[in-house]
Amino acid sequence: MLTARDDLYPSRYGQQTQWLPRQDPVVHGAREDLLAAGWRLTDIEAFERDGFVVWNDVFDASEIQAMQTDALRMRTDAACCAAEAAITEPGGQALRSLFQIHASQALWQRVAQDDRLRARAQALLGDQVYIHQSRLNYKPAFHGQAFDWHSDFETWHTEDGMPRMRAVSMSVTLTANHAQNGPLMLIPGSHRQYITCLGETPQDHFKQSLQRQTFGVPSAEAIAQMVETLGLVTVEAAPGAVIVFDCNTLHGSNGNITPWARSNAFFVYNAMCNAVQDPYGPSATRPEFVASRAHITPIQAPTDPAPIAA
Amino acid sequence: MLTARDDLYPSRYGQQTQWLPRQDPVVHGAREDLLAAGWRLTDIEAFERDGFVVWNDVFDASEIQAMQTDALRMRTDAACCAAEAAITEPGGQALRSLFQIHASQALWQRVAQDDRLRARAQALLGDQVYIHQSRLNYKPAFHGQAFDWHSDFETWHTEDGMPRMRAVSMSVTLTANHAQNGPLMLIPGSHRQYITCLGETPQDHFKQSLQRQTFGVPSAEAIAQMVETLGLVTVEAAPGAVIVFDCNTLHGSNGNITPWARSNAFFVYNAMCNAVQDPYGPSATRPEFVASRAHITPIQAPTDPAPIAA
Repeated sequence: MLTARDDLYPSRYGQQTQWLPRQDPVVHGAREDLLAAGWRLTDIEAFERDGFVVWNDVFDASEIQAMQTDALRMRTDAACCAAEAAITEPGGQALRSLFQIHASQALWQRVAQDDRLRARAQALLGDQVYIHQSRLNYKPAFHGQAFDWHSDFETWHTEDGMPRMRAVSMSVTLTANHAQNGPLMLIPGSHRQYITCLGETPQDHFKQSLQRQTFGVPSAEAIAQMVETLGLVTVEAAPGAVIVFDCNTLHGSNGNITPWARSNAFFVYNAMCNAVQDPYGPSATRPEFVASRAHITPIQAPTDPAPIAA
Repeated sequence: MLTARDDLYPSRYGQQTQWLPRQDPVVHGAREDLLAAGWRLTDIEAFERDGFVVWNDVFDASEIQAMQTDALRMRTDAACCAAEAAITEPGGQALRSLFQIHASQALWQRVAQDDRLRARAQALLGDQVYIHQSRLNYKPAFHGQAFDWHSDFETWHTEDGMPRMRAVSMSVTLTANHAQNGPLMLIPGSHRQYITCLGETPQDHFKQSLQRQTFGVPSAEAIAQMVETLGLVTVEAAPGAVIVFDCNTLHGSNGNITPWARSNAFFVYNAMCNAVQDPYGPSATRPEFVASRAHITPIQAPTDPAPIAA
């Protein structure tokens, strides 16, 4: 039984939904190190309280242009689209997500190394960091599908063997995110509880879950109760912002019928001391492009001092 | 060829998308008649310009309560749910729409007759009116699906044989409509153009179109171009408001993953002089519950002076 292993955050064992308290800090590093890395005091407090914070105007116009150009190139690049790391929309051929961009594409490696992301993640997590997952999310215009409510940590723990809550997601906005085009919605304060999910994980779950998640989604009752108490926040941001959220903050997004696509580049920084082990749930591991396992090395500051540019 | 008939608004003949000018007034009645019926001057002007207007606080708390109670009763009533007029969500059993409520349910007949709706529709359309279609829309929490962009008139003309643009929709909000739960989005000013749609209508199209529309949806290019020029408006309103929109105003809505359902009672008033004829598209007519044809009689003021109450 996998449950025999010391598992602080058990999930998907067929039991009733349980609300377990978080066993880990939210801010792991020393406050002075966060401030030195560029965190503002109010943002540290907001992140600790809400489980997320939005930094506007992190990237400038030329950097945004370079990222948008490269995202468009990859989207129409036959090799990129044919790769295992390319996930299409359910029932369609439109690209929904392209994974492992930090490892395969020079521009995105450079972005992942940038002080404004990496150094701030290091300070927050109080350790060297590596990229557990990276991807470009294209939410297409007109037919963009929803992402159901979930805690990333629940999946990373159960399916990838991430032991503790010591990882942070940074989502760089490449297009405007506004109320109408299926923006990210978060439940502020939800990161302080761990909601167990029902049902055992099927083998090869990732193939389907990357299109539309069904396991690892908390019950409707749990979400309703949490939103009733904590509310719901929609992130609206211009291109070049960074949405920073804790690995256990519940989030999701509606579909998008507007003519405005919603694209983000998404990087998950995990503390080196929190590197993945064997999964707590299914015996098989997920592929490398979804969860780094073979190449866990600290991500470093850029060696090339050149700015992010096309 | 059906095209041989005098058709001011041809659509779905396999041609390229065309932008045809509206051949009909937006406000058909005399301004003094609209004012006498309770229209405000600014609302008349807004409706003429934008193709819609939102009236807040039309129904009071006890009326809202009575409507909510009855909507809940019908949703859980086995006979209502088993009726042909009950449409479920795609891929599920949750009730999406319940049609013909003005004819089958006393409370909703009373609402349809109410001066605040019927008399104002009469004044706007400059004629006696009948109900072309009525329904309760339940957009469920968590799994509410999107409604794609469409002009109601395009369908009513092509599939039901409504000759001219002389009908108005009134949607009574039964729950809060806000930015997060898949609210109605409209393109202001879109009612002044008629965008032809592509593809011939399959037989029995209504069975599938009431779940998710594929024919009668303008091309993505046309929608994008229109939104670029005219913008997009999201309707946010408390329960008891009325969203009034012209039959040709382009509208749609995103799905809903929030815990908040979004329900509306929807009445389409058509001018008696504009009663449906043979369809301009397919030879078969749609069922009576979707489009009144057998019982076209003017809707009258309530005979029972009692208020709307449970």
